[in-house]
Amino acid sequence: MEEHGAHDIGSAMTTAFDGPPLEIDTRPGILDQYTIDETGRAGQRPRGVVYPADVDEVAATVRWARATGTPLICRGAGTSLEGHLLAQGNELIVDLSQSNSILDVSPTDFTATVQPGVTRTQLNAATVESGLQFTVDPGADASLGGMAATNASGTTTVRYGGMHANVLASQAVLADGSVVRLGRAVRKSSSGYDLKDLLIGSAGTLGIITELTVRLHPIPECLRSLRVSFPTVAAAVDAAVEMLGAALPVSRLELVDAPGMAALNAFHGADHYAETPALFIDVESSSEPAAIAEEQEIQRIVKAHKAIDFTAARSHTERHALWEDRHNLFFALKARHPGSRFMVTDTAVPYSQIAAAVDTATRLGDELGLTVSVAGHIGDGNVHTIVPYTDLNHDAVQQFSDTLVHHTLSVGGTATGEHGIGLTKKKYLREEHGAAVDLMIAIKRTLDPDNLLNPGKVLDT
Amino acid sequence: MEEHGAHDIGSAMTTAFDGPPLEIDTRPGILDQYTIDETGRAGQRPRGVVYPADVDEVAATVRWARATGTPLICRGAGTSLEGHLLAQGNELIVDLSQSNSILDVSPTDFTATVQPGVTRTQLNAATVESGLQFTVDPGADASLGGMAATNASGTTTVRYGGMHANVLASQAVLADGSVVRLGRAVRKSSSGYDLKDLLIGSAGTLGIITELTVRLHPIPECLRSLRVSFPTVAAAVDAAVEMLGAALPVSRLELVDAPGMAALNAFHGADHYAETPALFIDVESSSEPAAIAEEQEIQRIVKAHKAIDFTAARSHTERHALWEDRHNLFFALKARHPGSRFMVTDTAVPYSQIAAAVDTATRLGDELGLTVSVAGHIGDGNVHTIVPYTDLNHDAVQQFSDTLVHHTLSVGGTATGEHGIGLTKKKYLREEHGAAVDLMIAIKRTLDPDNLLNPGKVLDT
Repeated sequence: MEEHGAHDIGSAMTTAFDGPPLEIDTRPGILDQYTIDETGRAGQRPRGVVYPADVDEVAATVRWARATGTPLICRGAGTSLEGHLLAQGNELIVDLSQSNSILDVSPTDFTATVQPGVTRTQLNAATVESGLQFTVDPGADASLGGMAATNASGTTTVRYGGMHANVLASQAVLADGSVVRLGRAVRKSSSGYDLKDLLIGSAGTLGIITELTVRLHPIPECLRSLRVSFPTVAAAVDAAVEMLGAALPVSRLELVDAPGMAALNAFHGADHYAETPALFIDVESSSEPAAIAEEQEIQRIVKAHKAIDFTAARSHTERHALWEDRHNLFFALKARHPGSRFMVTDTAVPYSQIAAAVDTATRLGDELGLTVSVAGHIGDGNVHTIVPYTDLNHDAVQQFSDTLVHHTLSVGGTATGEHGIGLTKKKYLREEHGAAVDLMIAIKRTLDPDNLLNPGKVLDT
Repeated sequence: MEEHGAHDIGSAMTTAFDGPPLEIDTRPGILDQYTIDETGRAGQRPRGVVYPADVDEVAATVRWARATGTPLICRGAGTSLEGHLLAQGNELIVDLSQSNSILDVSPTDFTATVQPGVTRTQLNAATVESGLQFTVDPGADASLGGMAATNASGTTTVRYGGMHANVLASQAVLADGSVVRLGRAVRKSSSGYDLKDLLIGSAGTLGIITELTVRLHPIPECLRSLRVSFPTVAAAVDAAVEMLGAALPVSRLELVDAPGMAALNAFHGADHYAETPALFIDVESSSEPAAIAEEQEIQRIVKAHKAIDFTAARSHTERHALWEDRHNLFFALKARHPGSRFMVTDTAVPYSQIAAAVDTATRLGDELGLTVSVAGHIGDGNVHTIVPYTDLNHDAVQQFSDTLVHHTLSVGGTATGEHGIGLTKKKYLREEHGAAVDLMIAIKRTLDPDNLLNPGKVLDT
């Protein structure tokens, strides 16, 4: 491993390193790109960046890191929202975005095996002609390795689950540079301890995922999208829970609250929508007769919960337009609050607590003088709030987040449904998990005794 | 904790023990009941049995066990098939069958919280009036704690997943006697390491589960059961995979091979069935129109795969009769082989390998002079073979199992889809997991340094 540029890692390198040489990029202009994350949060300048192409290069990097005591931060597409990828000291960035080959697609097994830098849209482009899709959709075009590391989920989790449910097996490099295979590429196994799931969500702190075998699902024959407005959040939530109780094949079940719908109207310069809480729904039916019956059943349910209007999109074009609006929500809010940055909270609660959680967030926003919009994956109880702020009210937005998390934990929820702990939510970890945090620390120390893998993320040892 | 009977645990007990006293039953007649498991496999006589009623009594037992160096074996309903519950030395049995309260059923949250000794039929009786069910069905009326410990699954896994997917959170007593809560009772969380899933499938070797919050699912409105005969196993498997590819709401997808169907005919003393491979299928539809369309689509698929006959059961009575036959398979085989014991193998393979796995098992049975019947959870690739044997051909049946597992592992499968490793499959662990076994051992040593929790099960430390 050779390096060039401003920093010098030292002469121990050449002898300690027993793998293929990997160039360390230390050009300041490059390193600066790694100091800011997608949320605008800033970290230190890392000591360098390497771009391993495969597991051997990752393992060689880890062995060298261990020999030289160099902490490592792995990253894929860089779409973390919680500071997972920010350097705090002298870390070396292991950028896996170029380790992005699709190794296998097996239509009969409904699986694909990929390197960690493969993104979800890249994978879906490769599986579409088999009539299959990778269903975890966090919005961003994240890498699959990064999605596994944060246990990402998103809009389709209500039907297909998140990364725990969709990664069958992985290959990983451990802190000692050894390579292990975790899980098996079968639908179920009761063999040995579940290490595959231990690494999912561990944010690169227990090992570096270098390969994943994921589940693929059939692309549905018959897909309808619905938008329904309700007088209150509580009515929308009750209707959503009743749909779930009717075992309807709902694959997306998204809530946008009244301020969000108002922002969308303003963004489009039109009064498209009732400015009341709305559900955006996808229904995946097995046939046209099933689709008709399922849409009728949803109509019956939403009417019983005093729905104000009901829009069904059946063609691809109509469906695309309906969801385009939902996806525009963040841009609509940005347009309403020029110059602001945005905090996106990520709490998740049991269904029975959703309406109260939204109410708490709205009331708290009022108290703190903040403009709070809610965009929740209601089918999972995952209540995102989006709050614009500037340097002038940064403390208020932080207080908002803290109070919302405390409330969420007090009713049995979680501080983070899908974004992960990273740097920013470590402070809530013991409140959520109690003495289990000591067990997490013991496992971290066992797997990474020198604290070289993404140190200080998820927890402190 | 006091004890009576033949054994004496020693005087250290009274002082070391800081919880409520728990009587240790050491009556030989009682202990003998714990020396044989459901498969007829024999272990040592344990040193005694305790019956904790709740987490405090479990924690007190563990603290006492630690102070006295007493190894523990936890059990629920005692339905393990792999020797998980057999004593190998001087273990104390912690029988949790009396820790069986249903603590909470929350219809809005689609969850129930139970003590570990609650059985699945007990839970389903408590949730049915809410229109909800606990869907994991391993056949036996197992306890939920035991099912979590072995990551049980069963006939409905193709639609609902096994215990990993259906346990949201747990409470556990660790080897040091501390009590932790793992996971959160929400649909998704990315907070901290996934310790909930680390304990699921660990067979009581990493901690003792004292409480579980599980997912409930709506009882389907419209359920049809189908039985379809095929000329070959390959045709049946191809039809099954095509049904899965069509995203039909199949909730059971079971294969019985020709010898199994012949045994059922003999059992009933009638020629009910074509003596060729058959699929037993449940379809859960959201409405009657959906059910009709889905049944038609399945008819189309099975015809394309040369189905010989097609039986649809629509009423509850018809459905019950159809599945009764499938459930009678084991009794039918027993009746055909009086005086025999039975080995049930539990390998699982990728879909593309199912037909070859069945073929391998059948051929291998012929070579070894064994009568092999296959009853597979085909929707999960889980291929059970059922093989009668006596003392005269015990070696042959062991060779059958070993060869089948080696074949399975060589094509990417697992030695155990749902029964667990226990005692009997430890020998395959490294062949399946390679260097990851060292990581499992490291975790076991970290969590249970004195090797007091179900020692020698899953792995040796």
